Amino acid sequence: KSEQGETNQALPDLKKFQDIQTSIEFNNVYKIVLNRPTKLNAITFTMYNELIEALSEAENNPNILMVCITGAGDYYCSGNDLTNFSSPSAMSDIKKAAKEGGILLENFVNSFINFSKPLVAVVNGPAVGISVTLMGLFDYVFASDKATFNAPFTKIAQSPEACSSYTFPRLMGPVKASEFLLFNRKLTAHEAFERNLVTEVIAHDEFQSKVWKKIEEFSKLPPESLLESRKLMRDGDKELLIQTNKKEVDVLVGRWSSNEFVRVIMEFWGNRSKK
Amino acid sequence: KSEQGETNQALPDLKKFQDIQTSIEFNNVYKIVLNRPTKLNAITFTMYNELIEALSEAENNPNILMVCITGAGDYYCSGNDLTNFSSPSAMSDIKKAAKEGGILLENFVNSFINFSKPLVAVVNGPAVGISVTLMGLFDYVFASDKATFNAPFTKIAQSPEACSSYTFPRLMGPVKASEFLLFNRKLTAHEAFERNLVTEVIAHDEFQSKVWKKIEEFSKLPPESLLESRKLMRDGDKELLIQTNKKEVDVLVGRWSSNEFVRVIMEFWGNRSKK
Amino acid sequence: KSEQGETNQALPDLKKFQDIQTSIEFNNVYKIVLNRPTKLNAITFTMYNELIEALSEAENNPNILMVCITGAGDYYCSGNDLTNFSSPSAMSDIKKAAKEGGILLENFVNSFINFSKPLVAVVNGPAVGISVTLMGLFDYVFASDKATFNAPFTKIAQSPEACSSYTFPRLMGPVKASEFLLFNRKLTAHEAFERNLVTEVIAHDEFQSKVWKKIEEFSKLPPESLLESRKLMRDGDKELLIQTNKKEVDVLVGRWSSNEFVRVIMEFWGNRSKK
Repeated sequence: KSEQGETNQALPDLKKFQDIQTSIEFNNVYKIVLNRPTKLNAITFTMYNELIEALSEAENNPNILMVCITGAGDYYCSGNDLTNFSSPSAMSDIKKAAKEGGILLENFVNSFINFSKPLVAVVNGPAVGISVTLMGLFDYVFASDKATFNAPFTKIAQSPEACSSYTFPRLMGPVKASEFLLFNRKLTAHEAFERNLVTEVIAHDEFQSKVWKKIEEFSKLPPESLLESRKLMRDGDKELLIQTNKKEVDVLVGRWSSNEFVRVIMEFWGNRSKK
Repeated sequence: KSEQGETNQALPDLKKFQDIQTSIEFNNVYKIVLNRPTKLNAITFTMYNELIEALSEAENNPNILMVCITGAGDYYCSGNDLTNFSSPSAMSDIKKAAKEGGILLENFVNSFINFSKPLVAVVNGPAVGISVTLMGLFDYVFASDKATFNAPFTKIAQSPEACSSYTFPRLMGPVKASEFLLFNRKLTAHEAFERNLVTEVIAHDEFQSKVWKKIEEFSKLPPESLLESRKLMRDGDKELLIQTNKKEVDVLVGRWSSNEFVRVIMEFWGNRSKK
Repeated sequence: KSEQGETNQALPDLKKFQDIQTSIEFNNVYKIVLNRPTKLNAITFTMYNELIEALSEAENNPNILMVCITGAGDYYCSGNDLTNFSSPSAMSDIKKAAKEGGILLENFVNSFINFSKPLVAVVNGPAVGISVTLMGLFDYVFASDKATFNAPFTKIAQSPEACSSYTFPRLMGPVKASEFLLFNRKLTAHEAFERNLVTEVIAHDEFQSKVWKKIEEFSKLPPESLLESRKLMRDGDKELLIQTNKKEVDVLVGRWSSNEFVRVIMEFWGNRSKK
């Protein structure tokens, strides 16, 4: 029923989710679809929690070899859903809401840092904010040539997360990482490839067929060899990533509670409602 | 009076310097011009000291958001002024001169490592030696397509400084860092971009107008967000950078006191005077 | 007698080897040729031991400034000779053979980590496996445009070695390092250049003449300056590289003793013998 056809029925039933959709491809690939296409797959609190649960399900199932994440519709993901902070309860106690948001974010990012199997992003369209910064923790990033990459944190008085303050300068050097994380530069798929954020750019027309054919090949690799090799590449940085995540979340909680953030968000919504 | 027009008059008077020229652009950007164009902006002891003072002035003024450095005339900077070592007093006690030069250099580089605001290089023409290696500590490097980048340390029996022995292998990998720092390869602006030393290359004719327009945009970003985000990206490496600076200076002081250096410099001046 | 002509006769006689050939070029360059062209220069146990000895000879001779490694014939090196594991004695006690192989490998890689002089790879043709992963420890990599780079570890149920699990993510970022080390992507010379594994790609017709002309230039640099500068670039990571080597070898010894490896190798030889 998936585009790839052969969803495996022998595996135990997967958990059902609301904002994401999960399936097993090629017997051992856990596929996650960010599934709020009318909201450009913006990540709600519900979606954060569901992604944590889905990764846990994939981690604990010994038949699963790797996880692929993609987006429903034209977008990959438009980032954190800003309405997370505009609910009446959040508005009435912004500090409490910021603190709770921070705890959720820290758990969310740690669930990627601690995940022990290959993480593959299938970036079918524009990716924004945390959906981009998380890619620094992935093992393989396929990008459609229609994908773009953007994380305009300082424009909305926020700060980088998902360990990007550590991973991005290492991927692309500090002067290009700053262009992206501090000065809000939007990247084309090709530019993201040049900056080592993307493994491979594929023409949009052939994107789905080429990507899933390749993932099928990956799914047949000797599993112990793949997992032990990945562990060698990842374990050295793990402790530092966990600390970085914590530091970034502390700063971001401060940002969410700041007057600067409130002012910028008010302007942002103000300008929007005027249009 | 600057090319950009609107130098702000409301801010307190800036210190006056001899070998550099400073001004405030867009109300919060501290602009430093290396201002010895007839000497291709080679850095004298005076200029080292003035740059330390200027960074301190920019650091301590809460109205300043970022610092931009550029060169007067056709060059960005031709590096350390070798006449620093050919004065009669330096020649009479080379070990003492080397030691004093080392203390100055260590302070100079530490003033960049410890600087807490975005550092932007506006590379209007050729950059040599320490003016290039320092870029590993910058946040954004604009380069004219007429700029070149060169640090022929081993050719004159010296060794890398400004933490480039640490930052350059991380920017461009060890085999390209060695090509540059050990084997004296001169880079075009485009090559420096490919090696993550430069953020953006701009055609020389449009260089000044495009650069300052973009810096004006940067100057309007929410300041707390920008400074806290930068701090996240920078603080992790700070202690290691300070140690690296110390090690590099120790080696360089040894180099300046070495027979090898004296021999190479004598040949250098000898060949020059023959022409 | 060498292509470069002027092999120096004044230096003390070099050790004689079986699977490699060594000579002195330009008075101070120690040249090593991997010399099993009919076996595409696959590395036997003998060749591992001889390379350790050759590096030791080059290290301890104060007249030697740098080491260049190249391959005889069309290949640079086809990697570890898999017959190392198919001798009757290895087959009769696979765990013992794996353990002994691990000790040799760890010593071999440590002899590169600890080597104190510039290491130059002259990649005249295809490079496979450990001959590629080792390049992360080199200072300069020349590649013919006919060279390719490939390390299909997981395809044969193995895991990365020569510190590539550390060096490669730092060279090219994790998503391209994983493509290479986990997902078996073969790189062209140009792709290896873009991924910072190669310093310079040269057209095959001009390869030998251009490479050795440049190495001759390198050989004339002030030696103390070159060695001390390299030491600055290398010493910071040394301890971590030695630990990484140990971890990688532990995993690889486990791999060699695993049922998964035996099964994959049997299939590999089975498919081969059917052809």
